Amino acid sequence: MAANSFGERFRITTFGESHGEAVGVIVDGVTPGLEIDEAYIQIQMDRRKPGQSSVTSPRKEYDHVHIVSGVYEGRATGTPLTIILYNKDMRPEAYDDIKHSYRPGHADYTYMQKYGLRDHRGSGRASGRETAGRVAAGAVARKLLEQRGISVVAYSKEIGGIESTSFSEEEIERNPVRAADPIAAMRMVERIEHLASIGDSCGGIVECRIRGLAPGIGEPVFDKLDAELARAMISIGAVKGIEFGAGFEAARMQGSEHNDPMNTSGFLSNHAGGILGGISTGADIIFRVAVKPTSSISVPQQTVRENGEEQIIVTKGRHDPCICPRIVPVVEAMACLVLEDQIKRQAVMHA
Amino acid sequence: MAANSFGERFRITTFGESHGEAVGVIVDGVTPGLEIDEAYIQIQMDRRKPGQSSVTSPRKEYDHVHIVSGVYEGRATGTPLTIILYNKDMRPEAYDDIKHSYRPGHADYTYMQKYGLRDHRGSGRASGRETAGRVAAGAVARKLLEQRGISVVAYSKEIGGIESTSFSEEEIERNPVRAADPIAAMRMVERIEHLASIGDSCGGIVECRIRGLAPGIGEPVFDKLDAELARAMISIGAVKGIEFGAGFEAARMQGSEHNDPMNTSGFLSNHAGGILGGISTGADIIFRVAVKPTSSISVPQQTVRENGEEQIIVTKGRHDPCICPRIVPVVEAMACLVLEDQIKRQAVMHA
Amino acid sequence: MAANSFGERFRITTFGESHGEAVGVIVDGVTPGLEIDEAYIQIQMDRRKPGQSSVTSPRKEYDHVHIVSGVYEGRATGTPLTIILYNKDMRPEAYDDIKHSYRPGHADYTYMQKYGLRDHRGSGRASGRETAGRVAAGAVARKLLEQRGISVVAYSKEIGGIESTSFSEEEIERNPVRAADPIAAMRMVERIEHLASIGDSCGGIVECRIRGLAPGIGEPVFDKLDAELARAMISIGAVKGIEFGAGFEAARMQGSEHNDPMNTSGFLSNHAGGILGGISTGADIIFRVAVKPTSSISVPQQTVRENGEEQIIVTKGRHDPCICPRIVPVVEAMACLVLEDQIKRQAVMHA
Amino acid sequence: MAANSFGERFRITTFGESHGEAVGVIVDGVTPGLEIDEAYIQIQMDRRKPGQSSVTSPRKEYDHVHIVSGVYEGRATGTPLTIILYNKDMRPEAYDDIKHSYRPGHADYTYMQKYGLRDHRGSGRASGRETAGRVAAGAVARKLLEQRGISVVAYSKEIGGIESTSFSEEEIERNPVRAADPIAAMRMVERIEHLASIGDSCGGIVECRIRGLAPGIGEPVFDKLDAELARAMISIGAVKGIEFGAGFEAARMQGSEHNDPMNTSGFLSNHAGGILGGISTGADIIFRVAVKPTSSISVPQQTVRENGEEQIIVTKGRHDPCICPRIVPVVEAMACLVLEDQIKRQAVMHA
Repeated sequence: MAANSFGERFRITTFGESHGEAVGVIVDGVTPGLEIDEAYIQIQMDRRKPGQSSVTSPRKEYDHVHIVSGVYEGRATGTPLTIILYNKDMRPEAYDDIKHSYRPGHADYTYMQKYGLRDHRGSGRASGRETAGRVAAGAVARKLLEQRGISVVAYSKEIGGIESTSFSEEEIERNPVRAADPIAAMRMVERIEHLASIGDSCGGIVECRIRGLAPGIGEPVFDKLDAELARAMISIGAVKGIEFGAGFEAARMQGSEHNDPMNTSGFLSNHAGGILGGISTGADIIFRVAVKPTSSISVPQQTVRENGEEQIIVTKGRHDPCICPRIVPVVEAMACLVLEDQIKRQAVMHA
Repeated sequence: MAANSFGERFRITTFGESHGEAVGVIVDGVTPGLEIDEAYIQIQMDRRKPGQSSVTSPRKEYDHVHIVSGVYEGRATGTPLTIILYNKDMRPEAYDDIKHSYRPGHADYTYMQKYGLRDHRGSGRASGRETAGRVAAGAVARKLLEQRGISVVAYSKEIGGIESTSFSEEEIERNPVRAADPIAAMRMVERIEHLASIGDSCGGIVECRIRGLAPGIGEPVFDKLDAELARAMISIGAVKGIEFGAGFEAARMQGSEHNDPMNTSGFLSNHAGGILGGISTGADIIFRVAVKPTSSISVPQQTVRENGEEQIIVTKGRHDPCICPRIVPVVEAMACLVLEDQIKRQAVMHA
Repeated sequence: MAANSFGERFRITTFGESHGEAVGVIVDGVTPGLEIDEAYIQIQMDRRKPGQSSVTSPRKEYDHVHIVSGVYEGRATGTPLTIILYNKDMRPEAYDDIKHSYRPGHADYTYMQKYGLRDHRGSGRASGRETAGRVAAGAVARKLLEQRGISVVAYSKEIGGIESTSFSEEEIERNPVRAADPIAAMRMVERIEHLASIGDSCGGIVECRIRGLAPGIGEPVFDKLDAELARAMISIGAVKGIEFGAGFEAARMQGSEHNDPMNTSGFLSNHAGGILGGISTGADIIFRVAVKPTSSISVPQQTVRENGEEQIIVTKGRHDPCICPRIVPVVEAMACLVLEDQIKRQAVMHA
Repeated sequence: MAANSFGERFRITTFGESHGEAVGVIVDGVTPGLEIDEAYIQIQMDRRKPGQSSVTSPRKEYDHVHIVSGVYEGRATGTPLTIILYNKDMRPEAYDDIKHSYRPGHADYTYMQKYGLRDHRGSGRASGRETAGRVAAGAVARKLLEQRGISVVAYSKEIGGIESTSFSEEEIERNPVRAADPIAAMRMVERIEHLASIGDSCGGIVECRIRGLAPGIGEPVFDKLDAELARAMISIGAVKGIEFGAGFEAARMQGSEHNDPMNTSGFLSNHAGGILGGISTGADIIFRVAVKPTSSISVPQQTVRENGEEQIIVTKGRHDPCICPRIVPVVEAMACLVLEDQIKRQAVMHA
């Protein structure tokens, strides 16, 4: 399988289930000598954790960053950096009554088909909880990227049909939905609270902007920078689509509109989203992902049980009515992992 | 690097440049004993070749399938299957005047930034010509999939802003744009011919439908079936976005609308596009890709030369005013490669 | 890097340093449904642990098997199986005086050259302690192999120049050197005790015999069964050579002697060591590895310090005067990992 | 499978069968800008080709180096470098009478067990002919290593039981057995000619010496420099064992003898063979491989046919009575491939 690893030169392997003892990650390829600052990693973990506001799950997952290996006297040694996040505040019993049911929108049915058995507690390995390890590893990659002058920022561009009309980066962490438009943010919150009150959920669109990446980064053909970013983003459970630059709009443009002209100061537009032929142009990398509405809702739904019986199911448990605010740090983390890996792969080029 | 290989258990490695001696592919992992039928592979090559109609490049690339290794007495031996496609009708001189220019929308600038030198002739390795090897390999995968009862069909759903309003599979190969709606097809052709007449180009949306895939296929976490399909599709030069099932529409739906209910006969809707948790549900797999307008246009554009001088460029050469019709077989080929690889990876599961 | 992972379809990733918090392993690719029996894994850990007799280090490393993920209700779920072995009885201070010295025979100098910094405590990542994770993972592979009727047995064939003259499998676990010849075993113990008394050490030869492997297992060309076994064995710190079947003796034989004839009942000899063209013949797989004398000795030796100063060094700490007895379970574990991986890779062949 | 590829950052994929149209190799990861000199590659191919003297097969394989992709204006572009070597002077009919027989010492039986069918002509993919692609790729790696001041030299240390007693590098290419001792060389030739006259064969020991490799090169744990070299060498068909530095002799040494002391000028001995903890020490890398006697002999041997019938077989065809002289360039090529890959992997370390 080895499907639990990501990256070539900066490679992570995640492990753990939602209601097992812990989740975590091994990072293989950390630059030796890098100062490993647990507090720095913790900041990212805290951005991802639930219970941050009225629009996220009330669950009290506090993910304390615990480093098991790879650090000596505060610096990375270049050996595998292992971070464990112990599971807290678990209520497996909350899942007892759906132990043998296939919840609509979840991987219950497909995991059973694939593995022949499954850990049903909180979706087990298929839980969004698995992304905690990604965020921890992403924080390590982010530290390396910052040293290169690269910034990676994602935000909720649209939630429940409400679109942002302005972009102000400093607003993002000031509102519970992580929108870059404070007015839209208020309406998004209202929308989510309303849906939560009727036991329903909504999705949205998260945009990511990468600044400071030099031109010439990205592998050719199959491991293109955008191809790797697409794989990374679609590997996040709730993400159903991705587009770069003009994206699907490009399908309706003419070549003369879409092509980005150049002059001595660089590109005059950025419909390409900062990538040509899978390689960075030096312009900002811009992509958007489509986030589906949270599958766990308390609206009654029709489904079947493992034994084939039909049933009406009402998903209990403490869920996020909209996952966008908590997916923002995951999108950033995966982008950081892809970038650091591609930058390291490029380093080989002229070695 | 190793970025020229794709797949784990059914693995291809492509090679060759647009105006070099040949392009081709090595397929490592062909099931031994498989009958290798060159005519069968040739059919797919012919679907991809230019010069098929008024809406494709007049270039006369006839890709004769030439098998160099891996076959004995008409059957695959399980050793590397090597297919070479010699380049014909090349006119490198057509590129002499842009040898030191960066064509807008092309990888000229980024390849120079990455490699420090480049084969400018017809975009060299960055040319769509590279996909010929993918299509040849995809035909081998398709043969294996057919034996499993799986069909993979793509078509032009939208071109130049003209959307299809009906779907009839048998129409697809009957019109030059490979649309599934004969009425829309005619309007798409008119649109492309008009743009070609003014030296401009357009893009479109290609949809792919996979039927007959059993439930339970797809790796977890990072190598999810949709994640691998996304990587595969975005690795195609002109593709700028991908969405599965409801895709970006899902961002505007509520959980109660988006979740696909089940009864004893299966799923009652397919907003998920046949994939849950990265694993096939048994429903049709449905995804769409956004294709950008062809970058090579004869409309004057502003750009710079390698030496930094600004210039107005007019791309000559024989290009496709819309690449959608020829991307259809490439999308199918990449989908076949992903599926066969994932099916083989699943075969290990209970070994 | 990703040099901390081994295997393709049954893939392990080890982590941890000798004097860090813990060492451990993630196993990706465990057959779902496999009963995971901690006691079974513990038996292998105990065979590897020091302090078993007068001929091994008095260190009291008791490696309690602690499973963090991948198991539900006693069975493997097919998700990453994570096993942690916490470090106990550590005495880092014992290494303080060699903190800036390069111990002869150790990786101190090369790690500093490679990484630019190092965790000097007990060799850090370069310690034999890292093999604890391999043995834990190997026990999981061994369980799967037993279900296939495959047995993997290694033993000390020669120690300190003393060769075995008989082979009795049941003797192996009855003597502290894990020899298959009880008479030789006694002499080996005496030899080791004598060397220990003068602060010196010795090496030996460990042979491994694999029974019950079906013919046809092993990949071709670069991933041959013997090539993978060679990589696996040489990756064990103290191993300096490996030979299969007749091995180096084959260099002195004629083809008419070395070729193994066949009749209807199979092969009439086994100079090939059970492998032809990198693929199993169905005969026993037999190979031997050369184990160097333990590098840590209390005999004074000439070396240099990080600052270039020369010094006479006397390695303190509690070390094994001969590592062969404790390498036996490591050799078996690595062989089990290679076999299970190759068997799973073969399972894909006709899928 | 993907077992036909070797290396991570400097990665080759070989293809082709002994009596198919061609054999060849794709090199992915060639440093862009490298001058590709076909004559330079041809020199290595000529060292490997048969028909060089009375002690090698009279077969007239002249391997003309034909480059299909990856080069533009005489320089590597960084895209896949494809080299094809067309098969010449094939006499498949020479194998007709053994089409359904399992030749002792060959992979006939194991390939049939693994694949269920086989190309019997000259061993098909299992033929030593496959190494032609390795040698071509190795020549490209060698060019890069030379620019780094690294030399890789192998020679026949022992043949048919006759050992060299002196070492003179310039002698190696002056005698048909590639020995470094002219006196021993003469006796080796006599020995081979005698065995050839009676239709038998012999093996030998090939030693490889690598000079100029900086300290600190080599991955840790599983991808150690010696582990990768071991895998590379054992992947050569006729090689049955490998040892580094003191090798199997180390098993009989005491720690106080085996450890290499250091002073300010470096290591005072080299029992380690230039590698500690899997990483280069800066001393010469020295290893030896055991080469089995050629399996194809005309002495009658007992074997079975595919249908199970016993038969007495006499292998016809034009074979090397001793493969050592022609394995020397293959050993060097594989060493060059491992070194360039490990050097490139190290380049990432501090990126």
